[in-house]
Amino acid sequence: MRDFLPDEKARRERVLSVIRNTYRAHGFDEIETPVVEESARLHAGLGGDNEKLAFGILKRGLTAEDFAAATDPLDLTDLGLRFDLTVPLTRFYASHHAELPAVFRAIQLGSVWRAERPQKGRYRQFMQCDIDVIGDATGLAEAELIVASLATFAALGLSGVSMRINDRRILTGMLEHFGFPAHEHASVLITLDKLDKIAADGVIDELTRNNATPDAVAALNAYLTRPQSMEHHPFGERQIRKALPDGFDSPAVADLIGLGDTVRRATQPVKMIQPVAAVQPDIPLVFDPFLVRGMGYYTGMIFEAMHPDFGYSLGGGGRYDGMIGRFLGRDVPATGFSIGFERIVDLVAFTEDAAADAVVLLHDADTDPARLVALKAELIRDGHRVRLEREPRNLKALLDTLAASGFAQFARVGDATTAAELNLKPLGP
Amino acid sequence: MRDFLPDEKARRERVLSVIRNTYRAHGFDEIETPVVEESARLHAGLGGDNEKLAFGILKRGLTAEDFAAATDPLDLTDLGLRFDLTVPLTRFYASHHAELPAVFRAIQLGSVWRAERPQKGRYRQFMQCDIDVIGDATGLAEAELIVASLATFAALGLSGVSMRINDRRILTGMLEHFGFPAHEHASVLITLDKLDKIAADGVIDELTRNNATPDAVAALNAYLTRPQSMEHHPFGERQIRKALPDGFDSPAVADLIGLGDTVRRATQPVKMIQPVAAVQPDIPLVFDPFLVRGMGYYTGMIFEAMHPDFGYSLGGGGRYDGMIGRFLGRDVPATGFSIGFERIVDLVAFTEDAAADAVVLLHDADTDPARLVALKAELIRDGHRVRLEREPRNLKALLDTLAASGFAQFARVGDATTAAELNLKPLGP
Repeated sequence: MRDFLPDEKARRERVLSVIRNTYRAHGFDEIETPVVEESARLHAGLGGDNEKLAFGILKRGLTAEDFAAATDPLDLTDLGLRFDLTVPLTRFYASHHAELPAVFRAIQLGSVWRAERPQKGRYRQFMQCDIDVIGDATGLAEAELIVASLATFAALGLSGVSMRINDRRILTGMLEHFGFPAHEHASVLITLDKLDKIAADGVIDELTRNNATPDAVAALNAYLTRPQSMEHHPFGERQIRKALPDGFDSPAVADLIGLGDTVRRATQPVKMIQPVAAVQPDIPLVFDPFLVRGMGYYTGMIFEAMHPDFGYSLGGGGRYDGMIGRFLGRDVPATGFSIGFERIVDLVAFTEDAAADAVVLLHDADTDPARLVALKAELIRDGHRVRLEREPRNLKALLDTLAASGFAQFARVGDATTAAELNLKPLGP
Repeated sequence: MRDFLPDEKARRERVLSVIRNTYRAHGFDEIETPVVEESARLHAGLGGDNEKLAFGILKRGLTAEDFAAATDPLDLTDLGLRFDLTVPLTRFYASHHAELPAVFRAIQLGSVWRAERPQKGRYRQFMQCDIDVIGDATGLAEAELIVASLATFAALGLSGVSMRINDRRILTGMLEHFGFPAHEHASVLITLDKLDKIAADGVIDELTRNNATPDAVAALNAYLTRPQSMEHHPFGERQIRKALPDGFDSPAVADLIGLGDTVRRATQPVKMIQPVAAVQPDIPLVFDPFLVRGMGYYTGMIFEAMHPDFGYSLGGGGRYDGMIGRFLGRDVPATGFSIGFERIVDLVAFTEDAAADAVVLLHDADTDPARLVALKAELIRDGHRVRLEREPRNLKALLDTLAASGFAQFARVGDATTAAELNLKPLGP
């Protein structure tokens, strides 16, 4: 777990604020749940492998006899730290759905905890940014979520982000099409998920070693080794159909084409709306028939944000209609996206708009504090951020540090009694 | 512990943002520490009674033998949830002081947890807002902190807040002046702290029951029953001296007078600076020689924010020079203020500046999603916040809810294909 010093904390808060404000503009609402949930809920099977990583909180008031009687850690814990924001969301929705809109667009920005072995780049407390549309079974949910997420990356200054898209129904349909029996699907998908890393040969080898149905493996191999198969495909109807196996169709294909149409029209001025085929602008969506995404709960479209400069995704999500309603005893349609906050926070370099307003006032030990506070108050009233600093021996080191923290000007208070009389000089390189 | 639904979460975030931005303008920097600290640190004696309320986190990988061998909860926990932001600050400062400015002005906005019995108005997870000036032994620290805190309350729209001020050295000096021996001071202060509730008679009764030195109790009684003693005193030199026992002085008196001078000059235009006696404007400080504040760690000036409409303080703080350096093995001067976030968040009623920009688009089940998303995108580009809503049977209920959430206008999408063609109508009462 980490401490955040001022410069890093300021950057994190700015990233959070851009995420919050962009999704809010797109009609989403922020909610918050406690970081602590009941143990029983954290271990109800919704969290996959992460359940094992939950920190448990010791019950209060236990005695040595209670300890002696315990056989399992869960005997001694009643609460735990959340390991994701999805389990809390299912509880939140079950408790409050009557007070929420029929289609509820939720933003959750919060820390989660996992008892992982400390290692470089992994933390036991880290921030998750989850955005979910609950209650909308139509493709409008995916369209709003993807458009808002692309707008968020753009607002963060991460230009060039595109969304890699597939649909679980296409994956399942293709596996059927190739002849994999249903009981092999989960295992085949786990192997197919490694395609980026082990390439087509590796996938076929692993499936063969795992005794997957040989004819199906051969059919998959023929598809994987078509010249165009390994590309990410532009998101037009023609390209999507061409990327799929010959003779294969699925209701999901029409949904993908509809999504492309919607995003195309949303990302250009409305007045230019023309028949799609005539316009075909370059939209930031690509079709990837091999995108799997690990979690088993997805039921429809799945997507991952990618950037040409980075070998990892910047966020991902999809439709998961079976999960949110679990505690309500009925299916509730849901589509979610999770921004990889800890990954992107280091990529974002804000130009500090406000920096020109940030001023350092240097003073001596014997400067009248009343004058300092009065000058400071006057500058703050004029819209400045003001830091008082007693002039140190190594002034240059101090000024360099302040410049790096976003201060733009400095002045010695000296004889100035009003802000107008200050001799402000620029800070920094 | 509580869930926060959209309207309340939005209000909380706005209050936090005002607090953060105001203190930032006054030169403070936000930091963040993990919510989890080592058990040993949480139980090192810096947390007073709150240490007993710490939630402990069970060690990972324990077996039934480990449970059987345990005699104390601390045998089974290595981590715990923080119960305040001060203990983490002492650890943070000990770890990072070399990377921090010589005078470090810290903002901490974070949740803390206490295993209290659930009762009305008390929560086991709640937000604390702590602001500290570390490394400044001069009165400039108190002046900056008090001016910034009053500016924050004003920015929150809580007009009329004033700061009730005293100094621990004045309290101790007065007790000596009346003749209480040093070993009675702590107990006398506990009784004196109840003056607001039990009045002068109650204080004298309790001290007599506790066998405090009778001559000293009589001297205190004479002072408490002077006609002017029970008032809060304006913060001029004459009034402060007059409020104190005849013949009593302390170095703290000069510090209070200096603070009054500084705040007076900071809260009026600099050009009007004149000799204090000539101006004497009404500053939002009052002297209360009976303000005690509970915590034992204060060493100098103490203060509490109060508002004429509320019978409880809105925040408080003081100088506590012995504590921050505890883990460094040396005293580090420090002055802190803590805003009663959970108290003020319900008092703050923001006029939603941005509400005029928030628009609801009503549509039918069969409206083309591409048109909806395109219209939404166009309105967002124009600076609106946009919510899509499928038109329900009970339209009025929906519109009322949306108006209460800050949406200002609505339109049926109908045949409009551009934002300019939308027939926007005002929402709400």
